[in-house]
Amino acid sequence: MSEQEQLRAIRERIDAIDKDLMRLISERASCAQTVAEIKRAAGSGEDFYRPEREAQILRQVKDTNPGPLEGETLARLFREIMSACLALESPLKVAFLGPEGTYTHAAVLKHFGQDVQLAPMASLGEVFREVEAATCPYGVVPIENSTEGVVNHTLDLFVQSPLHVCGEVLLRIHHHLLSREESLDGVQRVYAHQQALAQCRRWLDANLPHAERIPLSSNAEAAKRAAQDTGAAAIAGDTAESLYGLNALKRNIEDHPDNTTRFLVIGRQESIPPSGVDKTSVLVSTSNRPGALHRLLTPLAHNGVSMSRIESRPSRCVNWEYVYFLDIEGHSADPKVKQALAGLRQEAELFRILGAYPRAVL
Amino acid sequence: MSEQEQLRAIRERIDAIDKDLMRLISERASCAQTVAEIKRAAGSGEDFYRPEREAQILRQVKDTNPGPLEGETLARLFREIMSACLALESPLKVAFLGPEGTYTHAAVLKHFGQDVQLAPMASLGEVFREVEAATCPYGVVPIENSTEGVVNHTLDLFVQSPLHVCGEVLLRIHHHLLSREESLDGVQRVYAHQQALAQCRRWLDANLPHAERIPLSSNAEAAKRAAQDTGAAAIAGDTAESLYGLNALKRNIEDHPDNTTRFLVIGRQESIPPSGVDKTSVLVSTSNRPGALHRLLTPLAHNGVSMSRIESRPSRCVNWEYVYFLDIEGHSADPKVKQALAGLRQEAELFRILGAYPRAVL
Repeated sequence: MSEQEQLRAIRERIDAIDKDLMRLISERASCAQTVAEIKRAAGSGEDFYRPEREAQILRQVKDTNPGPLEGETLARLFREIMSACLALESPLKVAFLGPEGTYTHAAVLKHFGQDVQLAPMASLGEVFREVEAATCPYGVVPIENSTEGVVNHTLDLFVQSPLHVCGEVLLRIHHHLLSREESLDGVQRVYAHQQALAQCRRWLDANLPHAERIPLSSNAEAAKRAAQDTGAAAIAGDTAESLYGLNALKRNIEDHPDNTTRFLVIGRQESIPPSGVDKTSVLVSTSNRPGALHRLLTPLAHNGVSMSRIESRPSRCVNWEYVYFLDIEGHSADPKVKQALAGLRQEAELFRILGAYPRAVL
Repeated sequence: MSEQEQLRAIRERIDAIDKDLMRLISERASCAQTVAEIKRAAGSGEDFYRPEREAQILRQVKDTNPGPLEGETLARLFREIMSACLALESPLKVAFLGPEGTYTHAAVLKHFGQDVQLAPMASLGEVFREVEAATCPYGVVPIENSTEGVVNHTLDLFVQSPLHVCGEVLLRIHHHLLSREESLDGVQRVYAHQQALAQCRRWLDANLPHAERIPLSSNAEAAKRAAQDTGAAAIAGDTAESLYGLNALKRNIEDHPDNTTRFLVIGRQESIPPSGVDKTSVLVSTSNRPGALHRLLTPLAHNGVSMSRIESRPSRCVNWEYVYFLDIEGHSADPKVKQALAGLRQEAELFRILGAYPRAVL
């Protein structure tokens, strides 16, 4: 076959594929409509969004991806298809810490897709209030964020709020060296948040050993400065690159490529059914006696339940000095986890399951 | 069947659809790879992006959409699938007038999909230079924008530049009434750009007859003020709503729902093959004698070719006083258009085909 004939044959195949894709996506949307009708007829309310089922579908897509697209890319396309199908019934309104262009905004789109209705708030407290007041069924808040330092505030809000955790979102954070300069040779100063400088130390030592490192309050501030300043560069992410129109002299200069930020999806749903790969978040507190924390954690160890994270926060109540946030592997409905939690509840003075939810897929 | 059985049956059908979707999307990506390999083997360079073919596919999707999704939504999903397939070969880098969050940024994503590599520039001149220097194969620039007023600058840049028009993007602009107030009753002042106030005049007359209307330099500025001011509202778009965390008291208050902004895709490709529904943009100039413009347009009328737009700009050259930008319906390769252009070329002192390209689909 000539080149032209080969190309024509492939294009015909692509056309046939596109016809099938259109038919299937449309049928999927019709199925979603039928599900909603059945639920409405049965009076089961607005519960169209099923985080555990979405997680299962995305996991399935990633696990059985035949290539050549990346599993992440394929799962993202499915996220958008699901988002479009869901919006047909009831477009989800999601509150988050604005403004647009922040990592939290990116986390909302990553988790809910483009068809979500955005409700950016000026503060974390407002995000909680919007969801508590049922103005938005869901909110997204940062919980582990190495450079922005808002984690503690989120934890404190959980202590006061009746809201639950319905999901988590992981965002991979990349640091780039951004500059008005055309090459590394022109860079005499590097601006960045202290933590970003630390996270790229090895790269800076190897590639810009003589450049001065100047810590600033944020990477966004650093990018802003680098945009005004010749001979300067900033360490910052994609958003800052776009915002200030800087050249990326080098991308992904972080020493540890797994630099991620974690967000929680908050809502009023008390429990999300198990998806198969889940986490449970618990808020506990104990008296300040020696060995108290150790005793508190014994039931987990005894039941072979792993804890992926523990954070302590000074309590604002008189009865105990610290509250602890535990993330446990597994769903609170799993027998092992259930037993461990029962033991934990007995030891703790304050005990609240913040939520059991699917582990982040993407 | 019970409700549960019905739901289970539909979910099984959705699972089967998802399997097929994954298989088809993956096969589509493989096809795109094969196309690229054949082209590379034939030495036909980097020409993987085919605007006319993408336009045909999107038009097909919209025209044959069986529902229940909106044609726009379905076409957007296809845009993303094509974008992912294309990025597998060579992620497209697109220069545009930044920063992020502008309408031009939205136009880039709408036309090229999420898998594009963004190159935001600080000025329109830089967008042209990036594409001329081949740092980016494409750029996106606003050409008709009722509220931002940058049209003329883009036109002037075309006079000096060897670049071509490879496509157009239409963005529907919606105006919302944004406020910190909870209801219309609390609104005593409405801030907006003069043009936005004019575009929403009827709605304001009917719904806020007693509120003072205060024109400001931009809708973004208006939103910023409304965010600080009680008793105030702003007319602005989605971006401002997100950026300043305001309530949309009422959406889409524009009197004419077809309020769109137009952008051009610029590139070095001299001509895009016909897609079936195309436009041709031409730059012409004539001496300033009486009747000159009329004579200039005669060949179009004689050949039954319609003109969708004409803009005049004072020339910066001594030889003629005005240059005209014409948008003509049809492709420069269509016999009728070809003949009309030949006649036009004879009449004009300056004559340049800026480009022939698919009419915007979405």
